Amino acid sequence: MAVSDLDSSLENLIKTFNELNASTVEELFSEPSPLEFMRYVARNTPFVIRGGASSWKATKKWNAAYLKTVLEGQSVNVAVTPFGNADAPTFSAQHQATVIAKPHEETQLFGDFFAYITQQETDPAFALDSEVRYAQTQNDNLRDEYLPLYPDALRDIPFARIALGKEPDAINLWIGNSRSTTCLHKDNFENIFVQIVGRKHFVLLPPLLHACVNEDLLLPATYVREGQGFTLRLDPDSPPVPLATWDPDDPERNASPVSALARPLHVTLDPGDMLYLPAMWYHKVKQSCIDDGEGFVLAINYW
Amino acid sequence: MAVSDLDSSLENLIKTFNELNASTVEELFSEPSPLEFMRYVARNTPFVIRGGASSWKATKKWNAAYLKTVLEGQSVNVAVTPFGNADAPTFSAQHQATVIAKPHEETQLFGDFFAYITQQETDPAFALDSEVRYAQTQNDNLRDEYLPLYPDALRDIPFARIALGKEPDAINLWIGNSRSTTCLHKDNFENIFVQIVGRKHFVLLPPLLHACVNEDLLLPATYVREGQGFTLRLDPDSPPVPLATWDPDDPERNASPVSALARPLHVTLDPGDMLYLPAMWYHKVKQSCIDDGEGFVLAINYW
Repeated sequence: MAVSDLDSSLENLIKTFNELNASTVEELFSEPSPLEFMRYVARNTPFVIRGGASSWKATKKWNAAYLKTVLEGQSVNVAVTPFGNADAPTFSAQHQATVIAKPHEETQLFGDFFAYITQQETDPAFALDSEVRYAQTQNDNLRDEYLPLYPDALRDIPFARIALGKEPDAINLWIGNSRSTTCLHKDNFENIFVQIVGRKHFVLLPPLLHACVNEDLLLPATYVREGQGFTLRLDPDSPPVPLATWDPDDPERNASPVSALARPLHVTLDPGDMLYLPAMWYHKVKQSCIDDGEGFVLAINYW
Repeated sequence: MAVSDLDSSLENLIKTFNELNASTVEELFSEPSPLEFMRYVARNTPFVIRGGASSWKATKKWNAAYLKTVLEGQSVNVAVTPFGNADAPTFSAQHQATVIAKPHEETQLFGDFFAYITQQETDPAFALDSEVRYAQTQNDNLRDEYLPLYPDALRDIPFARIALGKEPDAINLWIGNSRSTTCLHKDNFENIFVQIVGRKHFVLLPPLLHACVNEDLLLPATYVREGQGFTLRLDPDSPPVPLATWDPDDPERNASPVSALARPLHVTLDPGDMLYLPAMWYHKVKQSCIDDGEGFVLAINYW
């Protein structure tokens, strides 16, 4: 098979896929049964449940005042980056190469961290080039650092627990502001996102569009504080890792020969919305604060 | 990407697949719930239920005498081939090409058809090169030609109907003897096979092993009776159709560069056994009569 044959086979595959598949995410307005959920899992198809978590205590209670009270004196792990680019492909001038920019991690008092992200979001006098902080440890933190909040969330998503026959492996809290973006990547877990405060804007691509995302093997590097700024240091003894280098929001740059054929799905989660994101789907996640809100974005996900 | 890179990527994919996946078909000893079934559908994984249909009236009642009585005077559609090679890739000397050999179809009295297949199976004096007959119309024939038998089977497989949320599209009866083989192919349906009389021997390959089956575009041709024998005539105005040309039972012939890496799954259905065969899995099906049986093989499948 010649290379051009391969390209045209790929083109045909992607065009046929586009014809046969919806270009929007299916919307439900109540929870599916376990069996209905399993049909989505079997079809490897995402869906959003509008208002699926609107009756959760978390959705009703978690505002700035409540979080500050409940978590007063608590130390939390914070991911710090210069541009809100944790885990993103980033050109390192020093190494003259694109690397995976892993955040600098540090422990902060929750009150200090929370004051920083909300002021950065709402105070026009805050320096535009100031560092970006995001609580995003993804290590089951709702049942660890944020344990005082756990009773306000559900222990599991019942339709998913019953369908998959298991408890969640991890429940993660994500607290940040509009300056953080999670770049296009995939995870090997069935994923349910629950939006609590603010909005998350997802861009989704199914695994079949692998050839569109232009995965490349990149060396991992980690930000280290240096003076007022940051420098990237290559992780010792770390092999290169595959990462999508195409950004659906900047489609000309880093495009593969078939990137232009991809039709990404877009879906925005409002507070109380839930998203089922099947394993291995590529997703990019931006976030925004609500106009009259308190300057932060908070979500929970169940793996 | 050079061709050799593509080949080695494929090799790696298949080897990894082999390491991660079972080389035998999972065996259950009672029916799964709809949700348990849906987990197999979601994982695109076959299973066999030993004795799953052992209490069906069909399994208990359908012997030669019963079939001849119930279907007396009934005309049935019979697929006739010289070698039991219906729908198989077959070299046509006349066309100097491999074609898809579609059977000659004719209407016969059930009694005549049934006497032929059972005598061919059991009578040592029967000519070895005699034609092969197989009732295999796959057009929902249990609810049509074989309607008198329908009350002895189930209208649907309850766990599959509930899980998939629909009635079966077709229920097909297959009556033949050990001379018929269904060559390696795939169907775009979720499939449940129920063995009633005799044995079926399945060789299965998952869709991911597509590169191993060496699909080729072949012209369809149909057997026509000519004198005492048959000749193949190309179907007018029929475009070539992709068909697997590799035979896992003759692995040296028609092999692709990666066929040797395939590890086909083997499973034999005894009377009363059921097999879930996921859509798009490749399957080859041989059949055999039971030693002290009456010289025929009968199965039902639900699409």
